Amino acid sequence: MARTETGRVEAFSDGVFAIAMTLLVLDLKVPHDLAPGQTLMGALVAEWPTFLAFVTSYATILIMWVNHHRLFAHIGRWDDRLLFSNGLLLFGVVVLPFTTSLVATYLDRPGHEAAAMVYNGIFVLIAVCYNVLWRSASRGGRLLGPDHDPDIVRQITDSYRWGPLIYAVVFVVGIASVTVSLLLNLALALYFALPSALAAHIARRGRSVPRTD
Amino acid sequence: MARTETGRVEAFSDGVFAIAMTLLVLDLKVPHDLAPGQTLMGALVAEWPTFLAFVTSYATILIMWVNHHRLFAHIGRWDDRLLFSNGLLLFGVVVLPFTTSLVATYLDRPGHEAAAMVYNGIFVLIAVCYNVLWRSASRGGRLLGPDHDPDIVRQITDSYRWGPLIYAVVFVVGIASVTVSLLLNLALALYFALPSALAAHIARRGRSVPRTD
Amino acid sequence: MARTETGRVEAFSDGVFAIAMTLLVLDLKVPHDLAPGQTLMGALVAEWPTFLAFVTSYATILIMWVNHHRLFAHIGRWDDRLLFSNGLLLFGVVVLPFTTSLVATYLDRPGHEAAAMVYNGIFVLIAVCYNVLWRSASRGGRLLGPDHDPDIVRQITDSYRWGPLIYAVVFVVGIASVTVSLLLNLALALYFALPSALAAHIARRGRSVPRTD
Amino acid sequence: MARTETGRVEAFSDGVFAIAMTLLVLDLKVPHDLAPGQTLMGALVAEWPTFLAFVTSYATILIMWVNHHRLFAHIGRWDDRLLFSNGLLLFGVVVLPFTTSLVATYLDRPGHEAAAMVYNGIFVLIAVCYNVLWRSASRGGRLLGPDHDPDIVRQITDSYRWGPLIYAVVFVVGIASVTVSLLLNLALALYFALPSALAAHIARRGRSVPRTD
Repeated sequence: MARTETGRVEAFSDGVFAIAMTLLVLDLKVPHDLAPGQTLMGALVAEWPTFLAFVTSYATILIMWVNHHRLFAHIGRWDDRLLFSNGLLLFGVVVLPFTTSLVATYLDRPGHEAAAMVYNGIFVLIAVCYNVLWRSASRGGRLLGPDHDPDIVRQITDSYRWGPLIYAVVFVVGIASVTVSLLLNLALALYFALPSALAAHIARRGRSVPRTD
Repeated sequence: MARTETGRVEAFSDGVFAIAMTLLVLDLKVPHDLAPGQTLMGALVAEWPTFLAFVTSYATILIMWVNHHRLFAHIGRWDDRLLFSNGLLLFGVVVLPFTTSLVATYLDRPGHEAAAMVYNGIFVLIAVCYNVLWRSASRGGRLLGPDHDPDIVRQITDSYRWGPLIYAVVFVVGIASVTVSLLLNLALALYFALPSALAAHIARRGRSVPRTD
Repeated sequence: MARTETGRVEAFSDGVFAIAMTLLVLDLKVPHDLAPGQTLMGALVAEWPTFLAFVTSYATILIMWVNHHRLFAHIGRWDDRLLFSNGLLLFGVVVLPFTTSLVATYLDRPGHEAAAMVYNGIFVLIAVCYNVLWRSASRGGRLLGPDHDPDIVRQITDSYRWGPLIYAVVFVVGIASVTVSLLLNLALALYFALPSALAAHIARRGRSVPRTD
Repeated sequence: MARTETGRVEAFSDGVFAIAMTLLVLDLKVPHDLAPGQTLMGALVAEWPTFLAFVTSYATILIMWVNHHRLFAHIGRWDDRLLFSNGLLLFGVVVLPFTTSLVATYLDRPGHEAAAMVYNGIFVLIAVCYNVLWRSASRGGRLLGPDHDPDIVRQITDSYRWGPLIYAVVFVVGIASVTVSLLLNLALALYFALPSALAAHIARRGRSVPRTD
């Protein structure tokens, strides 16, 4: 039952990730009144802050979803504490269409410091939630599957520790320049994506010796 | 088949919970015209009724989802009556983005009594639906799994009995003060979350003696 | 694999049903400017066409979802024809938030005949799609599970035959009076819900003799 | 575990497809102010670009979902590279409600070339992503299920190769006439749907000899 149950927590979380990711599109506005002499392509290019914020948030939610999957691949049981730390994490995800719209609107206007603080602050919150969720689940192997590998668990704990710190740095950068902080977030998403893809590629290659099962 | 089928009722319900929870964000509005001398942070703080209603509704939907899971962990079969009492319960959930927006708009304006009555009234309806659904499923063990524990069933029945009463009290309080009723709802969500997390923690500790399976 | 595959068609359809059902709420508008002397409750009551259309569409989608489940409980395999007749059926579902909004806006205004024709026309289309889907799946037992009961299959075929006719009658009624057609749709949803709930209750009672498994 | 895991990637993708498909409806606008002498039906007919774009995008997402299922029916394992090429593909899907709205708005106005380039360009991107995803999964049978048929794999590879080329042609056509490119997309969706439905019908008939399992 326990295994089925984490399946359901994951399905519910997947739903929230998928919906939040898709609702981001509602912030992309079709230009309705072109200024005289303005082309549609020009009007779209002028909306670049919205597109940059959209792409950054999309890439970040995708990374967060991949990480959520990675963690739950090791978690075999659940309790109410897990449900609620997961619920707090999803709160951060649900709020992203709003913070994305906020940062896109104020990127090149007075108020950009506040917008950046809200936008990047939510990422700090989410990074903290991932740590709380993982530590609460992994401490003493409390909620891990019966065949978990302590080395991998420690490795995950070590790597997640850096998340809040990294996003705190982006938070500080964002006060100086929103645009740079958006580009940093985008680079972080690509950075988290690429090496692990490479690592997985190598790991899988190592594993691809003929099996007898 | 029956077990698979409740799985599908749950998956459908999870979808509705996840979407309603995520649509709440559409009510968070990016301030577009700052008054002279107003900062963005000031404009956001001035939107506190919207954020309070958002957080309250999010926390309440999360609690309702956790409760939905708890009940269905005991339900092993379904019939049309269960589908329709569940459908009425989900009606209450679907309506929440509207009632949340209503209460946020009228929190500090004439009309707040009516807004509070609609907002808290839906919570009373949902609490009643949980009782109808559970009683219809558990009476005589009608739709429960083959290995249900009568003590736990009775315990659930007893604890759910208080739901409509508690939300009726919040309903009355809301007529006097919307804000207090929102804070009460938020406190209720935390209260339902925390003790059960503690209880689960204790229960799990008791269970964590070495097993031989 | 086949069984898993219909599971995925169902999961996808459940997603579309759940989202369409939840998006209906976006048409419920919070009254923003109360006329002098108007209360919020009065303003909400004046929105009754929107609420009537909302409740009718919600109840109808719920019934359609229950029917979708009933049919797929008998379908054990899929092919592309099933995917596409299901896709056309879901087209009708996806469109409902629009037709609901249309009928709510024009219920008491010139244009109500056209609005009713669009709204009820989609229901006729959906009823036809259910027949196409079921016949395509059940003819010769083509896609049914290995242990299907021919009597039940014929019984379903017979009862679904009436759907398009009934909704065609509602379509004609709607040209004379939208409101009556909405109430008819609501009554139909309740009618389809209640007897089957009773029937299931009786059937289950008959089955509830002690079992030895 | 691997098999379960692709199940989760599919479920997440199904969620994104279902939501994007359903959000398309938000672009169908209820006409609020009828011009003097204009009927509601006339006002709806005048919105034909929106309905054409809606139907085209709906049919295209449906086809893409069917294709996604077909590919994943052969994929038995996943790695990070698959997750990210799938994530890029879903980016194209998430963006469709925006590009659909854009092309509907500018279909009969200056700017239609740019709107068509954005709309059809996303389809080219998605067609490329399907190739990247499939090649990355199928090269050397890397992520395919243990019992994959090399002939079918090669056949899929061959047929998908034409996707980007076909959508590139539509892209060029769209610069000359948006409407023709929309109709071409719609015809492509029907073309992909119908023959495969026929082929599946024939294949299934061939397979329908009595089995002894």
